[in-house]
Amino acid sequence: FEGATHDEPASMYVKVAQITDIKDTPRVKDEVYNGNLVVVDITRLKLDKIMYERVLKDLREVANDVNGDIIGLGEQQYVIITPMSVRISREKIGGL
Amino acid sequence: FEGATHDEPASMYVKVAQITDIKDTPRVKDEVYNGNLVVVDITRLKLDKIMYERVLKDLREVANDVNGDIIGLGEQQYVIITPMSVRISREKIGGL
Repeated sequence: FEGATHDEPASMYVKVAQITDIKDTPRVKDEVYNGNLVVVDITRLKLDKIMYERVLKDLREVANDVNGDIIGLGEQQYVIITPMSVRISREKIGGL
Repeated sequence: FEGATHDEPASMYVKVAQITDIKDTPRVKDEVYNGNLVVVDITRLKLDKIMYERVLKDLREVANDVNGDIIGLGEQQYVIITPMSVRISREKIGGL
């Protein structure tokens, strides 16, 4: 994917993160507080159920704090956390 | 995931879509033109290489048209397409 090559300033950024431990959450939280959307790879995190629950609790709180939103994507592979006033639709487009 | 339960109007929506055929792309394109971000599940689409290339060409054009951005996520599982002035960072946070 080449993506865009424009130089205009962005109004929002999408960041991809991998969380394997509770220590990784502050950076993700900072991004959301700064108005960015984060897609978190949780494939490794979910191997540790207790750590997974701790991290998810943390991320849900952030989404709530900023009046954003949070949803799981795929078979527990990703979690999307959105900043203020960005909503995630629960209706899937197309497919099954 | 419970997500947010606020009633304030959203400035942007995140939509999840599944594309299996070129016929599914107009709805995704409409969302992006309307200023929304779409996460497209391409797991089934990629089984048909020719169709996959056609759809991806289409989606890249949309991202370009609106001055948005496009990136692949995971092992060819998802494609994220963003609307105007929303950029996708190529630097991954945390993890490997």
